[in-house]
Amino acid sequence: MLLPAPIQDLIDAFSRLPGVGPKTASRLTFYLLRAPDELALDLAAALDALKRGTAFCQTCFNITEAGHAECAVCRDEGRDRSLICVVEESLDVVALERTGGFGGVYHVLQGALSPIEGVGPDDLTIRALLRRVQGGGVREVILATNPSMEGDATAVYLKERLTSFDLTVTRLARGLPVGGDLEYADQNTLLRALSGRQAMD
Amino acid sequence: MLLPAPIQDLIDAFSRLPGVGPKTASRLTFYLLRAPDELALDLAAALDALKRGTAFCQTCFNITEAGHAECAVCRDEGRDRSLICVVEESLDVVALERTGGFGGVYHVLQGALSPIEGVGPDDLTIRALLRRVQGGGVREVILATNPSMEGDATAVYLKERLTSFDLTVTRLARGLPVGGDLEYADQNTLLRALSGRQAMD
Repeated sequence: MLLPAPIQDLIDAFSRLPGVGPKTASRLTFYLLRAPDELALDLAAALDALKRGTAFCQTCFNITEAGHAECAVCRDEGRDRSLICVVEESLDVVALERTGGFGGVYHVLQGALSPIEGVGPDDLTIRALLRRVQGGGVREVILATNPSMEGDATAVYLKERLTSFDLTVTRLARGLPVGGDLEYADQNTLLRALSGRQAMD
Repeated sequence: MLLPAPIQDLIDAFSRLPGVGPKTASRLTFYLLRAPDELALDLAAALDALKRGTAFCQTCFNITEAGHAECAVCRDEGRDRSLICVVEESLDVVALERTGGFGGVYHVLQGALSPIEGVGPDDLTIRALLRRVQGGGVREVILATNPSMEGDATAVYLKERLTSFDLTVTRLARGLPVGGDLEYADQNTLLRALSGRQAMD
């Protein structure tokens, strides 16, 4: 017996999302079938509005509401424009903003260099970053790409492109995560924690 | 920094799905943001069409395309109408149909009895099942509710309601799953497999 077309269509659409297999997709579909109509319709409306309602910041390529040229951080006059934190995605901006510990501005690369996935420097917003730095007034660039192969490669590449400018280039510290357990830390993290050990005062 | 409203809306809508936490919801949202527009729009269209395009079979309450009074199984004239397999959900029908080993018809309860969740006999399609049996011509009812607390309780309840009719009531066999490992089987499954052991021929 084949499933009715509207059900199979929704299972197929869910299955195209990352991390959602056919089993999860059909579980979600049958859940929505029994749930109040609003649940499916609200999700449909939010999906419809997603691309129409958002745009990328002209300056830092962070995500912002459509109709704004710049994102909320870039529009904030209290931020230190001489300090640029370079991240892979808008979600990283959210994570850093949540700490409340950063007063500078961002630059969202929209990805990381990955020869395997065919992502080269021109696929990221690297040229725009270099233009911002060329514009002057930048004293430090923090490379906050992920602590992964791709993130590290991207940081090394950016470091090279930035050496000709008169500014400091830094990378986020590596070490044991706060609240983590030494026993469960992987070898590389432990090595980094050892080599980066700091004097206690 | 707050996320733009369209993004937060979609994260909220995803979070209302079962098994989707706020982290998964934002991962899906940011994935859709970067993915081709079709992905989000196709999903939105499928969600919109879900309820409009489907209906419940008048006879067995299985899911079917809107515009059909009966589901594909009930419409099939080759099926044995004297054999009714009672299941909790339409997904169970799909699973049983996939085996190709059942030639009867179904009855979908649309749930299982659960005092904790406030699901009583009137919340299920039990009355309709009794009417079908009263109509005559039924020789066997297979109770194929889940092998869980709720499924078992529902089967026991149905067995009692069906004793007054002249028919056989059966329950799906319990035991070790095919391809499973005895070592990893839980105690209850092993007990069932022992007590239900069969002579080899």
